[in-house]
Amino acid sequence: MSNVPGSIDPARLQEVLDGPWAEVRDAHRSKLDARFLPVYGETGDQARERITRLLAELPTEQGMPSAYPSEYGGRSDVGASIVASEMLAQVDLSLMVKAGVQWGLFGGAVVALGTRRHHDAYLRDIASGALLGCFAMTETGHGSDVQQLRTTCTYDPATQTFDLHTPHEAARKDYIGNAARDGRMAVVFAQLVTNGERHGVHAWLVPIRDEQGNPLPGVTIGDAGPKGGLLGVDNGRLSFDHVRVPRDMLLDRYAQVAEDGTYSSLIENDSRRFFTMLGTLVRGRVSVGGAASAATKVALTIAVRYGDIRRQFGTPGDDREVLLNDYLAHQRKLLPALATTYALHFAQTELIAAVSDVQGGDGPVDEHRQRELESRAAGLKAAQTWHATRTIQMCREACGGAGYLSENRLPGLKADTDVFTTFEGDNTVLLQLVAKGLLTGYRDEFGSLDGWGRASFVAEQVREMMLERTAARGLIERLVGSVPGRDEEVAVTDRGWQLKLFEDREKHLLDGAVRRLRGGASAKKDHPFDIFNDVQDHVLAVAAAHVDRVTLEAFVAGIDATADPAVRALLSRVCDLYALTVIEAERGWFLEHARLTPARSKAITAVVNGLLKELRPHMRTLVDGFGIPDPWLHSAILREEPARQEAMAAHDGTES
Amino acid sequence: MSNVPGSIDPARLQEVLDGPWAEVRDAHRSKLDARFLPVYGETGDQARERITRLLAELPTEQGMPSAYPSEYGGRSDVGASIVASEMLAQVDLSLMVKAGVQWGLFGGAVVALGTRRHHDAYLRDIASGALLGCFAMTETGHGSDVQQLRTTCTYDPATQTFDLHTPHEAARKDYIGNAARDGRMAVVFAQLVTNGERHGVHAWLVPIRDEQGNPLPGVTIGDAGPKGGLLGVDNGRLSFDHVRVPRDMLLDRYAQVAEDGTYSSLIENDSRRFFTMLGTLVRGRVSVGGAASAATKVALTIAVRYGDIRRQFGTPGDDREVLLNDYLAHQRKLLPALATTYALHFAQTELIAAVSDVQGGDGPVDEHRQRELESRAAGLKAAQTWHATRTIQMCREACGGAGYLSENRLPGLKADTDVFTTFEGDNTVLLQLVAKGLLTGYRDEFGSLDGWGRASFVAEQVREMMLERTAARGLIERLVGSVPGRDEEVAVTDRGWQLKLFEDREKHLLDGAVRRLRGGASAKKDHPFDIFNDVQDHVLAVAAAHVDRVTLEAFVAGIDATADPAVRALLSRVCDLYALTVIEAERGWFLEHARLTPARSKAITAVVNGLLKELRPHMRTLVDGFGIPDPWLHSAILREEPARQEAMAAHDGTES
Repeated sequence: MSNVPGSIDPARLQEVLDGPWAEVRDAHRSKLDARFLPVYGETGDQARERITRLLAELPTEQGMPSAYPSEYGGRSDVGASIVASEMLAQVDLSLMVKAGVQWGLFGGAVVALGTRRHHDAYLRDIASGALLGCFAMTETGHGSDVQQLRTTCTYDPATQTFDLHTPHEAARKDYIGNAARDGRMAVVFAQLVTNGERHGVHAWLVPIRDEQGNPLPGVTIGDAGPKGGLLGVDNGRLSFDHVRVPRDMLLDRYAQVAEDGTYSSLIENDSRRFFTMLGTLVRGRVSVGGAASAATKVALTIAVRYGDIRRQFGTPGDDREVLLNDYLAHQRKLLPALATTYALHFAQTELIAAVSDVQGGDGPVDEHRQRELESRAAGLKAAQTWHATRTIQMCREACGGAGYLSENRLPGLKADTDVFTTFEGDNTVLLQLVAKGLLTGYRDEFGSLDGWGRASFVAEQVREMMLERTAARGLIERLVGSVPGRDEEVAVTDRGWQLKLFEDREKHLLDGAVRRLRGGASAKKDHPFDIFNDVQDHVLAVAAAHVDRVTLEAFVAGIDATADPAVRALLSRVCDLYALTVIEAERGWFLEHARLTPARSKAITAVVNGLLKELRPHMRTLVDGFGIPDPWLHSAILREEPARQEAMAAHDGTES
Repeated sequence: MSNVPGSIDPARLQEVLDGPWAEVRDAHRSKLDARFLPVYGETGDQARERITRLLAELPTEQGMPSAYPSEYGGRSDVGASIVASEMLAQVDLSLMVKAGVQWGLFGGAVVALGTRRHHDAYLRDIASGALLGCFAMTETGHGSDVQQLRTTCTYDPATQTFDLHTPHEAARKDYIGNAARDGRMAVVFAQLVTNGERHGVHAWLVPIRDEQGNPLPGVTIGDAGPKGGLLGVDNGRLSFDHVRVPRDMLLDRYAQVAEDGTYSSLIENDSRRFFTMLGTLVRGRVSVGGAASAATKVALTIAVRYGDIRRQFGTPGDDREVLLNDYLAHQRKLLPALATTYALHFAQTELIAAVSDVQGGDGPVDEHRQRELESRAAGLKAAQTWHATRTIQMCREACGGAGYLSENRLPGLKADTDVFTTFEGDNTVLLQLVAKGLLTGYRDEFGSLDGWGRASFVAEQVREMMLERTAARGLIERLVGSVPGRDEEVAVTDRGWQLKLFEDREKHLLDGAVRRLRGGASAKKDHPFDIFNDVQDHVLAVAAAHVDRVTLEAFVAGIDATADPAVRALLSRVCDLYALTVIEAERGWFLEHARLTPARSKAITAVVNGLLKELRPHMRTLVDGFGIPDPWLHSAILREEPARQEAMAAHDGTES
C-alpha cells in the first residue's frame, strides 16, 4: 500500500467522483445560481409558489427530461436524468422532489406505460413543464402493498368509457405530489374491470383540473397539509366519484381493452404484468437514494468545514482553543460517516450505470437483469436513505446550537430528507424484497413486492445462494482468493480479508435463514405467517449484509478504476475506514461465529483510531472532493465564521 | 418469576409510573385542554404569539413556579416544578421551553444567585408571568465552554455602576430564549472586572426593553430567526454597547462589590465560585431530560396505537391483512424502545427525588452530593435526549408516510426535541463530565465543565473506582452476590446476572481508561492534549456504561418498590427486555472480554425474540400506562383510523 501524499488537490478527487456524467453535473453547477437555493422561514404557500415557479426555469437540456426520447425533447439518457436529480437535491430538495414527480414519476409513467398516441399528445408538454401532472398510486389504506389498491376503473362498452371510482375513504389517493396545487393530469392506478372480470392494477391518464385550475367534475382534491419537510411540494389527496375516462386514456403498452370490452395482454398473469409495469419505478428509487446521498454530502461538507474553524475548550500550554475536528470524538462521528458516503457513492454510480444499461435501450428488457437491478436499487435506496437520516442528524449535532438554526441549512436538509426512508418503498419492505431475491436466487417470479403472501412458497424453493457479483468480478475474486487460510496472519487492512469477511457474513446469514425457513415450513404448515415472521429479523440481517458487501465491492472496483495514484492512495485509506467500521459495528456477529478472535476484534478498534488520525489532515479535501459549489452550501456559519474568528483572536490577543 | 397476567388495567401501571408527584401530573391532565395543544402549519410569528399568550394562562399553582419560596407564589417544591415541565412537554414543547426559560432559567437564577432585595423586587412578577425575562449566558463564540465568556462587566466607583459591554461579535449572547420578542429583563453572565482586576463570570439582572417593548439604549436585540423546531420560542441575540448597570443589580449571593469597588466572596477560587453558581443549572438539565422522555412517550403511544389498527400485506389463508404490531420487525423496533423508555422513567424519577432532596432545603448544599447529582443529571440528560431523537425518528418511520404529516404530531415532536441533545449542555461534553467524575471519584473539584483543560491533572490523580449506588443498594448487592461463579449455569433472565454484567462492563472499561491515561501521562508529558484525546472514545464509553448501569439499577429498584403483583410481573419482563437488548447491542464488548460465550450471546437474541412475543399482547397497555390523555395525542391517524378501517373491511367484504 502506498502512502497518502500530504495534500491532494480536491479537483483530482472530484474528477474521479463525478464519473461518467460529469458534464451533467457541471451543467447544473454552472446554471443553478442563488435564485434556486432554499429560502429559510417561508410559509407553505410561499414555498409552493416559489418551487412551482423555479420548476419552470430549470434547464431541461441536461435535466431530468434527458430520459425521454429525442423526438420529445430528451436524449434517451436515463443516467443523465438520475444524475440531474442528484444535483437538484443539493440545491433544494423540494425542487428535486417536485421535478421527480413531474418528469420521473408522471412523465416516466407516460413514457413507459403509454403508447405512441399518448407520447405524441402529451410528452412534449410534459418535458417542457407546460403540462404538470401527478402519479396517483398510493392510497390511504395501502401504501407499500400497491397490488391491493382499492380504486376501481370499470369499462362500459355502451359509452366506450371507463368509470373511475373511489369506493371508500381508505381508497383515496394519498400523499400525491403535485396534486394539491398544480397538477392538471394524473396517471391513476386502479383495478381494471371489464366484462365483469377483474384484471389487476392498470394505469390511466386522467385530467383532474381545468384550465383555470379548478377540479373537474367528480374529482375531489384535498391537501395533505403541512408536513415534516418538503414544504415546496404540494402533496394532496384525490378521490374519484364515477369519473368518466375515455377508452384511449388507458396507458395500454402492456394491456389493451377493445371497444367491446375485450381484454388482451401479452402477459397473462395479472401479478406478473403488474410488476413488469412497475419495473420503471426502479428509477425513482435510484433517484431517491442518490438524492439522499447528495444531501448527506452537503451536510457533511458544512459540518467538516465548521469543525475546521470552530474552536472549543482550551488545552494546557496553548492559548488557542482546540478545533472541533481535532477531537477524537468528533473524528469518530464525522469520518466513518464520510467513508460510508464515499462507499455508497461508488455503489450508486455503478447502479446508475446498470439502470442505463438495462433500461436505456429500445429493445425488450432482460428479465433476469431487471430483477437484479430492482433488488440492487431497493437495497441501496434503503442504505442511502437511512445513512442520510443518521448522518444529517449527526452533522446537526456536530454543529451544536448553530446546527439548529435554519440559516445554517442543516434543519432543512434533515426535515426534507426524512421522508425518503419510507417513500418510494418503505425501507424495511425494500430490504425484505432484497432478501427474498437472495433466498430464491431470483427465481421467485413477480412476487417481489407482496411482502408476506408467499412465505411458504419461498420456503419451499429456497436453495443455496450463488454470490452474484457485478463489480469487477475478477479483481474481487482474486483479492479474496489470495487471503491465506489463517486469518491471524493477515493485516486487518488487507482488502481481500475485508472482502472475505463481508462475504462470509452474508453467506452464513443466508444459509442460516434458509435452514430456519425450511425447518419452519415443515413444522408450521398450518401457520404460514409464522414461518416467515419468526425469522423476519434474520432475513432483514441477510439483506443488510448483502447491501454491505455490494457496497464494499463497488468501492473496491471504483478504486481499481482510478488512475491517479494519489487519489487511489487516499481512497484506499477511506475504504479501509469504511470496511473496518462496518466490521467493528458488526463485531458481535463475527465473534459469535468465530470469524474474529477477541484479540483481533480489539485490534480493529485501534486500527480505526489510527486511520482517523491519518485521515484528519484530509477531512477538508474529502468533502471538497464532492464538488459542491460554495454558494450551494448556503450556510451562515460558514460565511461568517472566518471573520468572527479573526476578530475574536485579535481581541483576545489584546486582552490577555 | 411469576407469569404476567393476560391483561392488566393500564391505570394500575399508571399509578406506579406517576409516582410521588401524581398530584402535579393529574392537575396538568385535567387543566390543560385542547387550547394548549400545538397548531400545525403556523408561521413563526403566529406560533410565538400563541405561546406567549398561553404562557400567561398556565396554571401556576401546580406549575413550574412551585420551586419558588412560598412568599413569592411558590411552595419550595423543586420536584413539582420539574414534573410540571415534563407534563407541559407532552402538550407543547415550545410552551415547555418558554416556561422553562421564564421560570426555570430566568426566575431560577434570580432565586439562586440573587438576594432578598432582588427576590422582593422581582420574584412575584416573575412567578405570575408579569415580568418576562431571559437567561443570557451562551455566546456565539462560546457554547459549551461557558467559563470562557467574553462579555465584560466593569465596575466604575465614580458612578457606582457597572459597564456591561460586548467586545466583539463572537461575544454576543446567542440562542437566548425570550429575547427576540418578549423579554423585558435578562440575567446576563459576564466577566466581572473591578479595580482593574478580573474575578471570573458573574451574573447581573439587566433591563433590556422598555414598557413599550423597545430595546433600551445600548442594547441591540437580534432574532435568531427560523429554527429546526420550537417555533413558538423567540430565541434571539443580545449585544451590549457600554450599558450602565446599577451596582445593586449584581446578583450578589456568592460575591459582592462594595461602593468603592472592593470585591468580596466567601468562595475565593474563581472557578470554584463559578461552578457553585452553576449548581442550580442542574434543574434545567433534569427538566430537559424529562421533557425528552415525556415527548418520547407521546411518540411511542401514537406509533403503538397506530400499529394496532393499521394492517399491511396479506397472509396466506387469511382474508384480513396483518396488523403492523404483529410483525416481528415492527416489534423489534417498538418494544425495545418502549422498554428503554420505562427504564429511563424510573431513573428520572429517582433523579428528581435526588434533586428535591439535595437542593430542596434552605440550608447549604452538601458539596459531594451536589457533584454526584450533577454527574447523574448530565448522564441521564444525554441518555434521555439521544433516546428521544432515535425513538421519535423510529416512530415516525413506523407510521410510514402518515408519520411525515404534521397533523399526525410526529414531525413536530421530532423537530422540537431535536435541539435537546445539544442544549443545556452538549451531550458529548456532558458524558465527558460524567466520565471525569468517575475517574477522579468526585475529588477533582470544580473542573467538571472545562472539558480538556486539566487532562494531565486528572490523569495523575485517577484512582480505583468505588461503584456508588444510589438505588436500593442492599437489594442490588444481594442480587449481584447471589449469581453463581459459572455464568453458563444462570438463566439470562436472572436479574443478578444482568446487573453483574452491566457492572463488570463499567468497571472494566473504567480500569482500562485509568491505565491508558496513566500510561499516556508518563509517555506524553509534552502533549497534554493528546493524553486525554487519544482515549476520548474509551472515556465516553465509560460514561455510557455508567449511565446504563445506573438506569438498570433504578429500574430494578422501581420494580422492587412496586406492590401490585401483576404490574410487578409485567415490569419485570420489560426490565428483562431492556437489560437484554443493551447486552445484545454491546455483545461485541462482552464477547471480546469473555463475559459472554458465543453460544450464550446467540441465546440472548433468541430470548429477546421470545420476550417480544410475550410482550406483544401488552404493547397497548404499556403505552396506556404512561397516562397521556387521549386529546393530548393530537394525531389525526388515531382519530380517523378506526372508522376508516371499519369502512374498508365492510367494503372489502362486499367485494370479495
